[in-house]
Amino acid sequence: MDHESSPRRTSLTAPDVVVAGAGLIGLVTAWRAARLGLRVGVVSPEEPGTASGVAAGMLAPATEATFGEEPLMRFGITSRDRYPSFLNELAEDTDVSPGYRTKGTLQVAFDTDDMAVLTELRDLRDRLGLRTERLTSRECRRLEPALAPSVRGGILAPDDHSVDPRRLTAALRSACLRHGVAFIPERVAEVVLADGTVRGVRLTDGTTVPAGQVVLAAGTWTSQIGGLPTGTVPVLRPVKGQLLRLRTPTGEDPIVSRTVRGLVRGSPVYLVPRDDGEVIVGATQEEMGHDTRLTVGGVWEVLRDARELVPGVAELEIAETCVGLRPGSPDNEPLLGPTGVAGLHLAVGHFRHGVLFTPATGDVMAQALTTGSLPEYARRFDAARHFGATA
Amino acid sequence: MDHESSPRRTSLTAPDVVVAGAGLIGLVTAWRAARLGLRVGVVSPEEPGTASGVAAGMLAPATEATFGEEPLMRFGITSRDRYPSFLNELAEDTDVSPGYRTKGTLQVAFDTDDMAVLTELRDLRDRLGLRTERLTSRECRRLEPALAPSVRGGILAPDDHSVDPRRLTAALRSACLRHGVAFIPERVAEVVLADGTVRGVRLTDGTTVPAGQVVLAAGTWTSQIGGLPTGTVPVLRPVKGQLLRLRTPTGEDPIVSRTVRGLVRGSPVYLVPRDDGEVIVGATQEEMGHDTRLTVGGVWEVLRDARELVPGVAELEIAETCVGLRPGSPDNEPLLGPTGVAGLHLAVGHFRHGVLFTPATGDVMAQALTTGSLPEYARRFDAARHFGATA
Repeated sequence: MDHESSPRRTSLTAPDVVVAGAGLIGLVTAWRAARLGLRVGVVSPEEPGTASGVAAGMLAPATEATFGEEPLMRFGITSRDRYPSFLNELAEDTDVSPGYRTKGTLQVAFDTDDMAVLTELRDLRDRLGLRTERLTSRECRRLEPALAPSVRGGILAPDDHSVDPRRLTAALRSACLRHGVAFIPERVAEVVLADGTVRGVRLTDGTTVPAGQVVLAAGTWTSQIGGLPTGTVPVLRPVKGQLLRLRTPTGEDPIVSRTVRGLVRGSPVYLVPRDDGEVIVGATQEEMGHDTRLTVGGVWEVLRDARELVPGVAELEIAETCVGLRPGSPDNEPLLGPTGVAGLHLAVGHFRHGVLFTPATGDVMAQALTTGSLPEYARRFDAARHFGATA
Repeated sequence: MDHESSPRRTSLTAPDVVVAGAGLIGLVTAWRAARLGLRVGVVSPEEPGTASGVAAGMLAPATEATFGEEPLMRFGITSRDRYPSFLNELAEDTDVSPGYRTKGTLQVAFDTDDMAVLTELRDLRDRLGLRTERLTSRECRRLEPALAPSVRGGILAPDDHSVDPRRLTAALRSACLRHGVAFIPERVAEVVLADGTVRGVRLTDGTTVPAGQVVLAAGTWTSQIGGLPTGTVPVLRPVKGQLLRLRTPTGEDPIVSRTVRGLVRGSPVYLVPRDDGEVIVGATQEEMGHDTRLTVGGVWEVLRDARELVPGVAELEIAETCVGLRPGSPDNEPLLGPTGVAGLHLAVGHFRHGVLFTPATGDVMAQALTTGSLPEYARRFDAARHFGATA
């Protein structure tokens, strides 16, 4: 994160909106609201352990599509298609580049069973109107010569791109500052209510920040914010992901030129290249509570599958190991907009799709904060839908 | 390394001996010489990239024994048998505990071929007088319940112990300080000669430190010290090792209670437990020049074999990844004592055996510095034996 965009406490007297959380979802909400003229404060610790800082940054609804998740995928397609105009708007407010790469995604199958799975997903993709192209093993290797010769075949999704979530985070933070968003380097301890209506938030240092509207966007940590009727925020499961950042020798191109996803004997793995030569390899998906330990099993699993798919990664340097916690809601779908508490909004539960859903979430939350309702395409994700369910 | 033993520049006027290098070999040489009343200075950068800081610390000649290396193993046995008295002497000079563990080493075979290799080494061990005991698979697992059930059998070497090289380094440094050894946080740029005789060393900052005797003990970096006739220091190959330090959950015992070495489909791997619950898992052996990159292939190989041998490691946390460079001489044997240059000694080329050879090297170098000759049992390692060979 560059210096200009580092957190700072700016003057803040009675903001219209306080956002808890400075991951992509919190930042995009703050930025869109501020662009509409609202006075916005963002509360987040100096070094938040966000999923955004760990995410690979795939914008890949076509290769992510799976049975039973069509509504989620439709929202993903909406958000993916919004990305180019969203990034243009962002560029008006900051010089920080988000590392957008537009070479598409190649999804490959390691063995016959893996190929059968990819083939089965074809109908689903057609139904969702997702453009994909079936490729032979030879065609896959023509696109990505580092692929193992044993790869059985694959699918090219020419519209599934990628972004660098760390750079996008820095860009959104910078754009927020441009619009006068105040950053408060604390945690929200509780939401302050009076007569069932939001009055602001109390921070862990005891300070109260008054505000007419509050957005909780603190990922898995959101469940720990107090002061609310039981069930207002459903339990958010931390879904652990372990991944590795590999470094390409100076002067060489990354080992893959576009996102490569693979099924290796049923196990999913991906490699996402960055403009600076870095290649992200991931990721595990583990339900372990708030456990952020890097483990032998997690690292081994990622390396095993990456090596099978692209043997040349063996020569690459491990520059960094990362562990993140994805926020999973009870139905694995996000919770957006107004809750049963007047003035309180949620923007949580983005699970594996936070980066993909960032532009659409910004639009949805801006509308929620200004009109109190969600756009038609996001009604399904109504934040009050679990209210009353046992927490 | 604790604060008390951190490098410091103490007053040093015309020492008798200057030692270049503050790994285990440099430190043990300095300490033994200082105990004999010599005034000693040690020249080493503040954060030397020593092999000692990475080593696992196995004192395991019995399970290390291999064909064609009998003389090396005899020296190893001498040094291993010297360890208890050596550590007693060290304890007279410091309170820093070296993390000595005396539960022996269990060497196991993963498949039938691996078992055949272990069995073949039996005669060699008998010939060297090394005490080992053949165990069935069940007996192995009785000793170490975390071993994979598929382990074919193994050998217990009850006298092959371990030490914590980082703690031993700290202990030796502390003992050196107790005896007035001066630490100079610089590098030796060249040895200063006059009439073919050592007069001292010149540091990279241009300072000259006069001394009647100089010991070069800077591992693979020793080859880069200037001012000497060609061939005085043979080429020392850096043999890269990548290993991992695993953390045991608080309150639990380490996953193995003694050093466990294994052959897994011909590939050697080891797990070395520490008193604080840490388990060292390693190590690769790669000839890559001065390359200290942590690589996908290296980490994967270590994790693959460790998992096969002790499946439960999958749950452990990776606390640290390490890369070290072992100094390999042309014949893989150390170079000890006087060279063709009057007053110049070497203590280098310990390759994979630096920790094991530490006590014996201390004795040998103390004798060399005080009498100019090597004890009988170390004559084979005469530092001048390669002199005249093409560098």
